[in-house]
Amino acid sequence: MYDRLKGFRDFYPEEMGPRREAMDAVETVCRRYGFREVGTPALERAQMYVDKSGEGIVEELYSFEDQGGRHVAMTPELTPTVARMVVAKQQELTKPIKWFSTRPFWRYEEPQQGRFREFYQTNVDIFGSSAPEADAEVMAVVADAFDRLGLTPDDFEFRVNHRGILGGLLASFGDDVDVEDGIRVVDKSEKVERAEYYDLLSGVGLTRDEARQVDDLLSAGDLDEIAEFAGTDQVAAGVENLRAVMAAAEDFGVREYLTLSPETARGLDYYTGAVFECFDSTGEVSRSIFGGGRYDDLIEEFGGPSMPAVGVAPGYATMTLLLQRAGVLPEGTLSTDYYVLRVGDTRAVAARIARQLRDRGHVVESDVAGRSFGAQLDYADSVGAETVVIVGERDLENDEVTVKDMDSGDQTTVPVEEFPGDRDRPTYDDFA
Amino acid sequence: MYDRLKGFRDFYPEEMGPRREAMDAVETVCRRYGFREVGTPALERAQMYVDKSGEGIVEELYSFEDQGGRHVAMTPELTPTVARMVVAKQQELTKPIKWFSTRPFWRYEEPQQGRFREFYQTNVDIFGSSAPEADAEVMAVVADAFDRLGLTPDDFEFRVNHRGILGGLLASFGDDVDVEDGIRVVDKSEKVERAEYYDLLSGVGLTRDEARQVDDLLSAGDLDEIAEFAGTDQVAAGVENLRAVMAAAEDFGVREYLTLSPETARGLDYYTGAVFECFDSTGEVSRSIFGGGRYDDLIEEFGGPSMPAVGVAPGYATMTLLLQRAGVLPEGTLSTDYYVLRVGDTRAVAARIARQLRDRGHVVESDVAGRSFGAQLDYADSVGAETVVIVGERDLENDEVTVKDMDSGDQTTVPVEEFPGDRDRPTYDDFA
Repeated sequence: MYDRLKGFRDFYPEEMGPRREAMDAVETVCRRYGFREVGTPALERAQMYVDKSGEGIVEELYSFEDQGGRHVAMTPELTPTVARMVVAKQQELTKPIKWFSTRPFWRYEEPQQGRFREFYQTNVDIFGSSAPEADAEVMAVVADAFDRLGLTPDDFEFRVNHRGILGGLLASFGDDVDVEDGIRVVDKSEKVERAEYYDLLSGVGLTRDEARQVDDLLSAGDLDEIAEFAGTDQVAAGVENLRAVMAAAEDFGVREYLTLSPETARGLDYYTGAVFECFDSTGEVSRSIFGGGRYDDLIEEFGGPSMPAVGVAPGYATMTLLLQRAGVLPEGTLSTDYYVLRVGDTRAVAARIARQLRDRGHVVESDVAGRSFGAQLDYADSVGAETVVIVGERDLENDEVTVKDMDSGDQTTVPVEEFPGDRDRPTYDDFA
Repeated sequence: MYDRLKGFRDFYPEEMGPRREAMDAVETVCRRYGFREVGTPALERAQMYVDKSGEGIVEELYSFEDQGGRHVAMTPELTPTVARMVVAKQQELTKPIKWFSTRPFWRYEEPQQGRFREFYQTNVDIFGSSAPEADAEVMAVVADAFDRLGLTPDDFEFRVNHRGILGGLLASFGDDVDVEDGIRVVDKSEKVERAEYYDLLSGVGLTRDEARQVDDLLSAGDLDEIAEFAGTDQVAAGVENLRAVMAAAEDFGVREYLTLSPETARGLDYYTGAVFECFDSTGEVSRSIFGGGRYDDLIEEFGGPSMPAVGVAPGYATMTLLLQRAGVLPEGTLSTDYYVLRVGDTRAVAARIARQLRDRGHVVESDVAGRSFGAQLDYADSVGAETVVIVGERDLENDEVTVKDMDSGDQTTVPVEEFPGDRDRPTYDDFA
């Protein structure tokens, strides 16, 4: 009768289970690195994105006027919001500030594989450190989470670059070059034909020869060669910083996931230093899995103090594609430890047993629909119950219940006082 | 520079910690009862709420036209969405369907204590059972979660009623009475003066005398008296069903939280049977903490089969008020198991130690900002680190690290190979 909106998804339990396991893996690792969870609004002033986000994002905003006449937008990304929050409490917050949060974002894009209008990601940010260890740590968090999910170094790579190298190289051709537009062009380099690529680079102020030189240098990927060609302090500093990030990643045990990639640009305007994008190593998933980078100027632009920052934001739609490709998508199967089956007027006893099992931390279902014996057993089977405890009127007359192992089908009667008794996880085997 | 929108909240870590603990308590209990998590969109067709939600909700919708010309709304409640999802997969889903999810909703209301324009709740629903056990189970889930959070039967009560009793009583005065409007009037009975209340009841088709009779009967709260007065099957059936729900709650161990309350109405139009609202027993928190009830017709109205349903939706803004009033708001303090402090060129060893401790499941921070010894120790203190492991250049020359207990300030040197060694959670005491 009503349809779901295009680009939005319903997650039924069988889809939500794997999704939740992936989120739990990322969040568990965040917590172990000492990142603290924050919660953020779904709506912000639209002006914040007009001022701070890239053009592409503004075109895709879900924005509208609220009942109070405010021009608001459903958040298309988290960074402006956390920047606002840091600025609001800049004095009180202990630095470095290490925050994470998992939530949906919204962009009016054309849906395609791994891309939806509503998409979930976990943002992981460090504010207040310009040190290369901060860049390396946010990458280490995701690498560890991916490892936890069963991905190996053969499955994915972080392509790492530095805005100082790419921007510095473009700037070295003279003041006529529009560096920001140039970075956006390079960001598209893999998606367009060479001829078009050179046209686009010409459009930002390079000659055809210079465009070819840029292309050759970036695809060769030799940092020393790029630095020498550009001959500017900006590029030299970029190369030095990028190497320091790689060295920190080496110490942090995640160097093997990193690939130097001078063509990696990242679409967002606010990046200032190291940038990185994660890709499927096999190329089967052709999209970027997620990205991140350093944005040292944003807090100051938001009216805060000078405060360096770096962040990364793994997204779950693309991550699911990678996990599927690698054959390690969590199963998230429907598991149930116990089903307490009632026959006749035995609800009080059945409920007591269910409660005691739940108190021990188990997943326990019991009838809430007045079902027959057979229907209850079918249901117990359908939810994957391992053990069924049958509380029947006749058994109870003998102060007994029946414990049934659903795998083998074996069952035995047990004195009702002994179930669960002092056992933590009683099964058929305990009484057989 | 940019301000947060009115009625929206930023949760910094110190606010998010308690919030997360409360959500975890509710979700843990949901899982133990065999409810399965679902994920749902933030936007739906606005028409769905116009058709299915109460008038009040429609007035408060955040609705707008999206870039594709669709009239959409930010979801003000979950029930229509899950009804849509159940209808979409009505054949495949095993009944009873038991779902939960935690997420924000949005209503353009005037913010006040415990009420925001963006608010979080956990929806807990059972589809496919008309049995009183289903009503009792959703109440038991919340009662168990509240118990887990440290609340006692003295802290809160569920005021329980039945639409068949309230609606049946109003209907018994004749066809001229607008029963739905009358229920909405009774829903406001505690918020208005008696004279105004009687005026409002007159407005739905009762005489002043009848209005007084209704008020007397409902406030006396004697189910038998109400049934006798009304003399209709509808009221008798409502009374019988409500008593069956109470009896199931008794068996489920949560009867002590329930209070019969014939005046409890619930604002939403789609309720058909038992309804309940949770209140602070002391009355200090004067608002309803949350509510729920049975909505047996909604799935069919959504184009699905006839499928009874019952649900409850504890909200965290009001729950926080209750937890605060009772003095059991989770602390969610900033806890850190280890801080690995680096002095000099010791990053590789420090990172190895941090990684090994994280692999054991601990929360471990280390320097990512190039800080001095003192600044690192201050930071370790500020994040509540229990143990600081000092990895210094000079210590390392002797293949040693220093283990410091932050509580006592005691410290000792330890051979670097022995930390963490085969210990699961090494502390100063292990080496003192």
